[in-house]
Amino acid sequence: MSNKLRQHIEEIVPLTDQEFQYVLSHFSFRKFKKRQYLIQQGDYVRNDFFILSGLVKSCSTDQIGKSHVVFIASENWWVSDPEAYHNQTPATVDIDCVEETETGYISLENREKLCRELRKLEYFFLRKTTAGYIASQKRILMLISANARERYQFMLLQYPGLLQRVPKSVIASYLGVTRETLSRLST
Amino acid sequence: MSNKLRQHIEEIVPLTDQEFQYVLSHFSFRKFKKRQYLIQQGDYVRNDFFILSGLVKSCSTDQIGKSHVVFIASENWWVSDPEAYHNQTPATVDIDCVEETETGYISLENREKLCRELRKLEYFFLRKTTAGYIASQKRILMLISANARERYQFMLLQYPGLLQRVPKSVIASYLGVTRETLSRLST
Repeated sequence: MSNKLRQHIEEIVPLTDQEFQYVLSHFSFRKFKKRQYLIQQGDYVRNDFFILSGLVKSCSTDQIGKSHVVFIASENWWVSDPEAYHNQTPATVDIDCVEETETGYISLENREKLCRELRKLEYFFLRKTTAGYIASQKRILMLISANARERYQFMLLQYPGLLQRVPKSVIASYLGVTRETLSRLST
Repeated sequence: MSNKLRQHIEEIVPLTDQEFQYVLSHFSFRKFKKRQYLIQQGDYVRNDFFILSGLVKSCSTDQIGKSHVVFIASENWWVSDPEAYHNQTPATVDIDCVEETETGYISLENREKLCRELRKLEYFFLRKTTAGYIASQKRILMLISANARERYQFMLLQYPGLLQRVPKSVIASYLGVTRETLSRLST
């Protein structure tokens, strides 16, 4: 499993074996079953999770108890509740497994230590954070100005090959459309 | 004007006079009049703008020509079209001035050069990008699961003192509500 993590980091910065072993010593690994939670609303969030295999969804529950899909993530994505992780505030979302999911995860303390000690890792996390920021901005644009068809097309582009793995109710919630509208779009 | 930039950077990393002079040599400064554009949809985006004074809004125009406010930003915020800036793709938003606005701005090339040469600046931009990522996630949560009243309250918290400076039509568009709903919320 650690090979996938190395490959992922090395897409941005090359590491010597010794450096990778040091990086690795700051990570832990855990397998979650389908429907298990990585993070639950209200939790104190210790970790940022790198998905080695599997699929998760992040949901926010509104005042009347309705759940809304914030994002879907599979292999090679990092997932957490960013504000809760970085600012040590309670989680505002649930992240649970749509499939059995293997993760490598790192605490904020270990991440900051690695960034201080190994400049390559600071650069890696800057690039990853920038990518997360860009993806979030695109999601905002989609939410405020795209119609249902554009949202669906955006999703096909952003998550190629994922539609078969995710229940239709999750896709509909991610797009903010009804199941009926989704059926019309996907035919 | 450069004092404000120094103060802003030094909230995160202290700089010697010499370091700051070096940082400063990578920035340019420009004053924009009310209604002038920092970025126009379709542009090649060279710069990330730090707002020294004034107020701008970012808008996305949908297929039927309706404009939607993505964000509002004033003193001490950084604004750009993140994807266009980082990935050198055409801008997907317009950013224009609600008030006369003074900016310090930096090209991607200069920013990357500074990050390579001065580790403190890399750390500064990592912190700023993380803050932008967190703010974007909160905006997503607001858009997908908050009702009109919650959105309004979120805005009061995120932009204290700004409501008086922004036209009601801009606030209504940012919140995704009608002018009538906004009137009800703000009384």
